Amino acid sequence: MAAASDRPFKLLVLPGDGIGPEIIRETLRVVDWARNAGLRIELSEALAGGASIDAVGAPIAEDVVDQALASDAVLFGAVGGPKWDHLPRAQRPEMGILRLRQALDLYANLRPAVCFDELLDTSALKPELIRGLDILIVREATAGVYFSLPRANEVDADGQRRAYDTQAYTEAEIARVCRTAFELARTRQRRVCSVDKANVMETGALWRAVATEVAADYPDVELSHMYADNCAMQLVRRPDQFDVIVTDNLFGDILSDAAAALTGSLGLLPSASLSGLGKGGNSRGLYEPIHGSAPDIAGQGVANPIATILSFALCLRWSFDRADLADRLERAVRQVVSSGVRTPDIVEAGVAPVSTLQMTDAVLAALDA
Amino acid sequence: MAAASDRPFKLLVLPGDGIGPEIIRETLRVVDWARNAGLRIELSEALAGGASIDAVGAPIAEDVVDQALASDAVLFGAVGGPKWDHLPRAQRPEMGILRLRQALDLYANLRPAVCFDELLDTSALKPELIRGLDILIVREATAGVYFSLPRANEVDADGQRRAYDTQAYTEAEIARVCRTAFELARTRQRRVCSVDKANVMETGALWRAVATEVAADYPDVELSHMYADNCAMQLVRRPDQFDVIVTDNLFGDILSDAAAALTGSLGLLPSASLSGLGKGGNSRGLYEPIHGSAPDIAGQGVANPIATILSFALCLRWSFDRADLADRLERAVRQVVSSGVRTPDIVEAGVAPVSTLQMTDAVLAALDA
Ligand SMILES: CC(C)[C@H](C(=O)O)[C@@H](O)C(=O)O
Ligand SMILES: CC(C)[C@H](C(=O)O)[C@@H](O)C(=O)O
Repeated sequence: MAAASDRPFKLLVLPGDGIGPEIIRETLRVVDWARNAGLRIELSEALAGGASIDAVGAPIAEDVVDQALASDAVLFGAVGGPKWDHLPRAQRPEMGILRLRQALDLYANLRPAVCFDELLDTSALKPELIRGLDILIVREATAGVYFSLPRANEVDADGQRRAYDTQAYTEAEIARVCRTAFELARTRQRRVCSVDKANVMETGALWRAVATEVAADYPDVELSHMYADNCAMQLVRRPDQFDVIVTDNLFGDILSDAAAALTGSLGLLPSASLSGLGKGGNSRGLYEPIHGSAPDIAGQGVANPIATILSFALCLRWSFDRADLADRLERAVRQVVSSGVRTPDIVEAGVAPVSTLQMTDAVLAALDA
Repeated sequence: MAAASDRPFKLLVLPGDGIGPEIIRETLRVVDWARNAGLRIELSEALAGGASIDAVGAPIAEDVVDQALASDAVLFGAVGGPKWDHLPRAQRPEMGILRLRQALDLYANLRPAVCFDELLDTSALKPELIRGLDILIVREATAGVYFSLPRANEVDADGQRRAYDTQAYTEAEIARVCRTAFELARTRQRRVCSVDKANVMETGALWRAVATEVAADYPDVELSHMYADNCAMQLVRRPDQFDVIVTDNLFGDILSDAAAALTGSLGLLPSASLSGLGKGGNSRGLYEPIHGSAPDIAGQGVANPIATILSFALCLRWSFDRADLADRLERAVRQVVSSGVRTPDIVEAGVAPVSTLQMTDAVLAALDA
């Protein structure tokens, strides 16, 4: 990966479908702010998801994958919509993101579940349980049941359909994502909870063994283990017991959505998919909001751009080695949310909602102040 | 299965470990109440879980499995404890319950997530979101990743460990549990939400196809589909949107625990594992509280017996064809909870907690009233 000094960082932008293009358009204004602050970024843009299916017949073109491989980071909007819902699994918009995760070896999917205290009231949980909540879920994202073979949907001799999937993990695949979790825990409360079904699954037993081995290299970080079902329960009952959670691809998919829902700040949460943690914030990464493409409100200019803007903050931190700019951007967003500026998704009674553009204006103004 | 008229129902009781024996002991007093109400029940008792490991070296003895096969119903306490935590997966206490599910073909695991409005305050969720909540999760419990082969933990040629599990489903396995869900929906709000990861898994795609086919036989029941990650999110955000959820073994394990946690009534929730719905409430079933063996409070006589008592109510309903007695018992429990009788797990500030025995006394008194 490049250091800012020798060449510009390459950022590939994939707006995708639905509200993707409009939230990306506004986030690019924040990218400009970073450039004005002295960061050299070379931008390119390409199609992904439904837009790519319509144009080239695949959720992501191979030359776009190559372009992503040649980039330092990818900024992703959102993909999918009713138009492509009838397509078979392998041809659907979501396959674009799975293909990128694997091609770029983005094995560590970071999903922060952070509560914006100003939005406490929008959460389903009692305020006292989630005030100040800050959980980081580190989900393995390039192996497990999402990618393992064999898998098939077959018809057997007597005409009965039978489907199967495989969940496979090597110790190397588990160890590297656990290392990422332990490294990140060192920047936080130094507690990692490893989640599995070691009581039922072979991969769970290996997961638990390897997590325990990796922990030996991090004596300053506390490791605990939890079964996935209990974790789902504990997230609801007492979410503040968690600092970093590390888990496999499938459990991570489910538990990170549950954790995000707890915060009540769903429309504001970013995510990062990293190929490990590079030295000093120079990791290859893909950055995207955790929300979907929201086809129902697409094109109206009312989508909340904050999750995408905060995804770019993660990009500044992890791929562009500019934690300083990331901090400034995150502070500016906090300030805007504190000041009561609200897109329709987070609006309170009696407040006039702002547009995607106006929300971004507010963030840029806070950055300038 | 027997009708009450020709021979007594056979009930096998497996107290298990931890608080299992004490909650079962009290529930047997409620079994006596049902006998006094004219129900003929032939009781037997055997070991399961850690108690069985200690006595015969296995979490359940094969002759106990045979005894269960010869019974109409099994009443199960809880298993496990620190004493057996070091054992390898295949020898652990939980394997007893998995072995029974498979041997008795208990493919439909019914997990009601019901909110006791008197305990609203103990929930992590805002009262208005869960008041009157009544979700029924129907979890497939004899196939999927819990039981499918091949599965292994291996070391490959270059010395690296690799583990894998298989999740397999036939259309028959999916169809029968979906039928159970649709039948049960007919006794409720007539809405079934089928949960899968059809966008990622082959078994998910088959699950969705078969659920849709089964729905054709239930035109009076509304079917919807949801991805498992979104379901975890929706359970937290707006749990009252669900009536019946039907899903696979692994998703059901996680989502039913999340749903139970929402209610705040965790210590009160029963479960039933049925080999389908027999004609007129004569299904073979295993009944157990959803809570664990709570080794920390075992032997103190303070465990809450209500989840086990309500599990026996489900037994009356589904295996002993006595919906009338089940209704009476459930009403009595509601009344006791309403009247403010509380074991320590659900006690409010300023209320003196009662013992396991006293709570059962209260239920029996309400039944007599
Ligand atoms: C779109 C889908 C394939 C994806 C996943 O299941 O990983 C999404 O839910 C996510 O979590 O990023
Ligand atoms: C004890 C364990 C094997 C079991 C499971 O995973 O099914 C439990 O969590 C349950 O849900 O009944």
